[in-house]
Amino acid sequence: MHQVKALVFDVFGTLVDWRGSIARETRAALAPHGIDTDWLAFADAWRNEYEPAMEEVRCGRIPFCKLDRLHRRNLDIVLERAGLDRVEEATRHALNLAWHRLDAWPDVAQGLHRLKAKFRLAPCSNGNISLMVDLARRNDLPWDAILGAELARDYKPKPVVYLTAADAFDLTPAETMMVAAHTADLAAAAEAGLRTAFIARPNEYGPGKGETVAGTTVDVSCASLIELASALEA
Amino acid sequence: MHQVKALVFDVFGTLVDWRGSIARETRAALAPHGIDTDWLAFADAWRNEYEPAMEEVRCGRIPFCKLDRLHRRNLDIVLERAGLDRVEEATRHALNLAWHRLDAWPDVAQGLHRLKAKFRLAPCSNGNISLMVDLARRNDLPWDAILGAELARDYKPKPVVYLTAADAFDLTPAETMMVAAHTADLAAAAEAGLRTAFIARPNEYGPGKGETVAGTTVDVSCASLIELASALEA
Repeated sequence: MHQVKALVFDVFGTLVDWRGSIARETRAALAPHGIDTDWLAFADAWRNEYEPAMEEVRCGRIPFCKLDRLHRRNLDIVLERAGLDRVEEATRHALNLAWHRLDAWPDVAQGLHRLKAKFRLAPCSNGNISLMVDLARRNDLPWDAILGAELARDYKPKPVVYLTAADAFDLTPAETMMVAAHTADLAAAAEAGLRTAFIARPNEYGPGKGETVAGTTVDVSCASLIELASALEA
Repeated sequence: MHQVKALVFDVFGTLVDWRGSIARETRAALAPHGIDTDWLAFADAWRNEYEPAMEEVRCGRIPFCKLDRLHRRNLDIVLERAGLDRVEEATRHALNLAWHRLDAWPDVAQGLHRLKAKFRLAPCSNGNISLMVDLARRNDLPWDAILGAELARDYKPKPVVYLTAADAFDLTPAETMMVAAHTADLAAAAEAGLRTAFIARPNEYGPGKGETVAGTTVDVSCASLIELASALEA
């Protein structure tokens, strides 16, 4: 692990609480229109369309487009399914940008600032560049660059996304560590040759509903980015 | 100009003094090997190969590759021409990274920090991502993202490079301002629909050898980034 020179991060779930933030933002956007629903369930339903939408791109059925566009398509699906067809275009457009206003878990900014003294840092997320920029400004995330799906023009867990991130830093995969709260992401990164760090986010999908232990072999496993900084002597 | 939401910057010459820095770095790399030459002239000779090398990519004669690789090819050309074939591989490799160690003009960090309060900021340079990251760390450049040639996979002044930068920020070209010290760069950006700001760098190519006035119509013209921040009320 002493050869690791850059850390690249999954963002949704690993660094930010998408579920609580999307529930809050959805309520703020729709409640003024007289809509009342289970906002956390709405967030879950929206997020459930995430993987199937990206799979359309990964398998080549539709050309690459930014995650913002997939989120919007998924929002339309979820609104229709909930019998909320009456929500008009301007509201949908504004609500879709809720993904640009997610809050980080409490350890993230401090952990990243410590890690930055020793490593190059970038998101390696399926989120688009503008979305990552907005999350960075909101949560004080000190990135060196924004890497990930938009640079690679494909979606994780396709190997090209991890390999493009390492290459952008002029590093080999073995000099690059993927940090994530999800087994599938880490298994794919390891398969591409990257080092891996698991961060437990036990409440990502609701209380007690998140991964607490990596389901694959990883180089390091921690409960927060502050622990990770200590483990990597940063 | 009130609709401008992001500023994207040329880097070599506009933000950093490539000539003085490359002369210093070349001397540091080669003088210990008993080589003595006019180091500023060596920097000029290396830089003179910059445009012809990128033109090979722009016209499609060779596939896109990072500027680091073009710089290395150009270094080999310049060393051979100077009768310095004896410089060995390890020295060439280290010297090529001199472009990652350029110093910013004195107004740059302060100006960018002021501008960041009001605008999204990114380089829109022909330099590769890792090179931009190293210059940012060295000179305290507070980028939101690293945009430019590596993201667009082509070289300025091809319009795709400017358009890809605006799109990465989810902005129209008219909401994006290109900042540069070179008429050709600004003319191409304006042709692509961007707003333009000229920064005078009168000594870029040596004392009195730099553009003092834009040779094309621009939206704003300044002597420093601090003046630009004032002009844009940042």
